[in-house]
Amino acid sequence: MTSTSVASTSTVGCCVLSPGEVIAPADAEHLARTFKALSDPSRIRLLSLIASADGGEACICDLTDPVALSQPTVSHHMKQLVEAGLVTREQRGRWAYFRVVPDAIERHAPFLTSTIR
Amino acid sequence: MTSTSVASTSTVGCCVLSPGEVIAPADAEHLARTFKALSDPSRIRLLSLIASADGGEACICDLTDPVALSQPTVSHHMKQLVEAGLVTREQRGRWAYFRVVPDAIERHAPFLTSTIR
Repeated sequence: MTSTSVASTSTVGCCVLSPGEVIAPADAEHLARTFKALSDPSRIRLLSLIASADGGEACICDLTDPVALSQPTVSHHMKQLVEAGLVTREQRGRWAYFRVVPDAIERHAPFLTSTIR
Repeated sequence: MTSTSVASTSTVGCCVLSPGEVIAPADAEHLARTFKALSDPSRIRLLSLIASADGGEACICDLTDPVALSQPTVSHHMKQLVEAGLVTREQRGRWAYFRVVPDAIERHAPFLTSTIR
């Protein structure tokens, strides 16, 4: 059994900005990589499918049909979500299983809302 | 005086998902376009600079120095943020002025947090 996740280089709460505060260049770089991983509709659907799966875990074998893509294509998309640190991948026997990384979401989500505070 | 903004094709709250709900393909397309506009560190810095500006409005003349880019390059980035509906652009005399669109942020921000609910 192997588990893979790419650790974030950013500190927790990097992207929670006070009113009048401008995001630091290093945090902007990090955030841009996250948003790039989410800049494809299939990857957004895949993230949503994993988040909504029973127990918060989805087998790649259950992800191909809903997005109507081949397994190699889904694997390619999943690799990008894993590399962005948004999901973890665990190989169990024949299949890979994925989970959303709550810390990564909590770290990145506040940036958008901080722009309208 | 001209004002430009690209209306969202998405309904308000498109991306607020209930537990177990998967994002609709059309909403995923829309969200991916927004995240693509944010997939560049300079555009994230620009959005943050506008959000933090006095009165919530920034002149393009004040945006070039902080990101250390030429005005044509900043204009190119701003065009993408405007086309994604994240900011509005208003031309006043020689300069263009930008504001964050709160509705657009409120519509898109909840998707990420909905994946960890």
